[in-house]
Amino acid sequence: MEVEVKAKKAKEASRKMAVLDTETKNRALINMAEALLENADKILKANEKDVLEAERRNLKASLVDRLKLDEKRIKAMAEGLKEVASLKDPVGDIEEMWIRPNGLQIGKMRVPIGVIGMIYESRPNVTADAAGLCLKAGNAVILRGGSDAINSNIAIASILAEAAYKSGIPEGAIQLIENTDREEVNRMMKLNGLIDLIIPRGGTSLIKNVIENSTVPVIETGVGNCHIFVDESANFEMAKDIIVNAKVQRPGVCNAVETVLVHKGIAERFLPVMVKELSSHGVEIRGCELTKRICPDVKEATEEDWATEYLDLILAVKVVENIDEALEHISKYSTGHSESIVTENYTNAMRFLKSVDSAAVYVNASTRFTDGGEFGFGAEIGISTQKMHARGPMGLKELTTYKYVILGSGQIRK
Amino acid sequence: MEVEVKAKKAKEASRKMAVLDTETKNRALINMAEALLENADKILKANEKDVLEAERRNLKASLVDRLKLDEKRIKAMAEGLKEVASLKDPVGDIEEMWIRPNGLQIGKMRVPIGVIGMIYESRPNVTADAAGLCLKAGNAVILRGGSDAINSNIAIASILAEAAYKSGIPEGAIQLIENTDREEVNRMMKLNGLIDLIIPRGGTSLIKNVIENSTVPVIETGVGNCHIFVDESANFEMAKDIIVNAKVQRPGVCNAVETVLVHKGIAERFLPVMVKELSSHGVEIRGCELTKRICPDVKEATEEDWATEYLDLILAVKVVENIDEALEHISKYSTGHSESIVTENYTNAMRFLKSVDSAAVYVNASTRFTDGGEFGFGAEIGISTQKMHARGPMGLKELTTYKYVILGSGQIRK
Repeated sequence: MEVEVKAKKAKEASRKMAVLDTETKNRALINMAEALLENADKILKANEKDVLEAERRNLKASLVDRLKLDEKRIKAMAEGLKEVASLKDPVGDIEEMWIRPNGLQIGKMRVPIGVIGMIYESRPNVTADAAGLCLKAGNAVILRGGSDAINSNIAIASILAEAAYKSGIPEGAIQLIENTDREEVNRMMKLNGLIDLIIPRGGTSLIKNVIENSTVPVIETGVGNCHIFVDESANFEMAKDIIVNAKVQRPGVCNAVETVLVHKGIAERFLPVMVKELSSHGVEIRGCELTKRICPDVKEATEEDWATEYLDLILAVKVVENIDEALEHISKYSTGHSESIVTENYTNAMRFLKSVDSAAVYVNASTRFTDGGEFGFGAEIGISTQKMHARGPMGLKELTTYKYVILGSGQIRK
Repeated sequence: MEVEVKAKKAKEASRKMAVLDTETKNRALINMAEALLENADKILKANEKDVLEAERRNLKASLVDRLKLDEKRIKAMAEGLKEVASLKDPVGDIEEMWIRPNGLQIGKMRVPIGVIGMIYESRPNVTADAAGLCLKAGNAVILRGGSDAINSNIAIASILAEAAYKSGIPEGAIQLIENTDREEVNRMMKLNGLIDLIIPRGGTSLIKNVIENSTVPVIETGVGNCHIFVDESANFEMAKDIIVNAKVQRPGVCNAVETVLVHKGIAERFLPVMVKELSSHGVEIRGCELTKRICPDVKEATEEDWATEYLDLILAVKVVENIDEALEHISKYSTGHSESIVTENYTNAMRFLKSVDSAAVYVNASTRFTDGGEFGFGAEIGISTQKMHARGPMGLKELTTYKYVILGSGQIRK
């Protein structure tokens, strides 16, 4: 019953949070950051337990690395909270206000969503990031991290909740579910009326489970099978730089490119240049038949490659007849995250922008820019790959909703 | 398998719909309106079957009335489609565009949602309204009306789909599920990847069923247990007019008032005036103890009354200590639709606007204005009482989403 009790407390807290002034919220964020730094030892001790347990269970080295905290990572969490304090508070903004013929003034006011449930995996820094962003946007948050990081999460969440409470934030605004049973999360996803939104962050199976079982609204964050289309008129140098950047700069993230489509008219000249450059960066290429004919050393791509988010130094390459085939391929395999065209042709640039149905559609830029910070939003809580409520990088504004405020002078409906 | 086949066709159609120009969509809407008028006989004949069947099954008279079409109602449907044609097309609008320090230009572009599933009950006019709005916003629509109206719906949908297709709208943009088995709708709600959004319209049990069983995102439209709070400083004449309007002008709709809260300081003077006026309009009052003491003729309210959406000439009345108790009561019983304060006190007006967590919050106006037309949106597809994506009246813009379009000149991420 932990989750029900905590959700009820969160709901109560959210009512008080909604009318909290920005100064109080900012002061709390600064104090939360300080508290993390002051209690670093406590966090590291708890984290050590998690890491030892993970090693005992022979968890993959990459997962253990995600889990592991050190002074530097704790400092980064604290910096993150301070950055959120410096961001503009969207709550109370009236974005539009118009007047009706009968004199009613109607405004659209930004307000918090209420109670947000975060369901995530092993990275304990999500605990601090999510708590900070939800708090600044005036929401109460219920955190449900992975069992791997439970000791770290309990330490971080209790430090944050205490610092927030001491700074005037209502009790229950930041709560962690300590029971790591699967049953607990299943019940959490059914708490309509208490939880307003659930944001899952993690691998495909976690996200799929939440979408299939949650009756509370969900924002899908997600998988990025991102494409770059090199058009016939592309500047080769630019195309090469963009592709290398999008694949190599940080291959393990969702906005890295996974498939490059190359216009047939330039394939013979461009592919050798591109393959050479990528190979020098250690990228394995998996090409279509035509790619293999032009660059015989590349591996052959299978149907599966077009649909794969490698998150690794591997790139699928396909030669296409024209922009139509490129659009067709993207429409079939894209996960709706980020796609880019490299072209000097105005009409094709506009057509690509209009036709591609993804959260971020680029002309002549790397897909790696799909990120709250790069978009100018400050911190982000995730990147939405679905279409309802929020799409692409989600910052503070995406953690709010709106209500209509209507100023009358006695109007009645005729 | 009808719904899967139709959903696949809708998905294909939605890709073409997304890039359709406004002129083609408008021409289609006009032609659809004309086709309804030209085929009125066919529609009335089909409707007669539904009505006879409903009468044979002894359906409530009010339900039979909702079901029944006549020349006038068909004309109203046609007018509705023409009105949608005259509304501004939101698709392609770039609401904001900003430039980043690295020169990237980032814009937020309105785009269609994709495929929208409408699940509704007996009113066959929803078939035309929903088809028109979804089409104008660039979406494909799958209509699933109630079995009571199935013959009417088949007639209307086939006339609309044919007129749309002849006007250049892709095949599959408007489709009705003809199989009225419950299994069919259950499968429809699980078609993630093919259907992007489901909007249920109907009674509480229909909406509840969709929320509990849909894995596709849902926008809850809804129940309105609306409140008016008469503050101590209220202008009595204004308060009386607003309450009478909100209760009497059309009691069967979701934005009608169901509970009036009266400040204790004016209860003795205001209640008799209000009760007298409402009684003269045939309204039954159910009052709290204090209300009964002041107006001994009113019925006594039970706990259930505070939570009831009467949709009838019945009004619950409660005397409250102050604005705090009014806010507390609203927070406890409101369904998040529309609430109004009648006051001359600036501070209380601002506090009410800020504190009440409903889709529409009024000062000195009737709750009856919560309506797409009254807000200036033109037609509406429903009134959202949830917080994700859209809140309050949903017009064309709420049937779209956005994507980021990013114009670069070779930018790569550092």
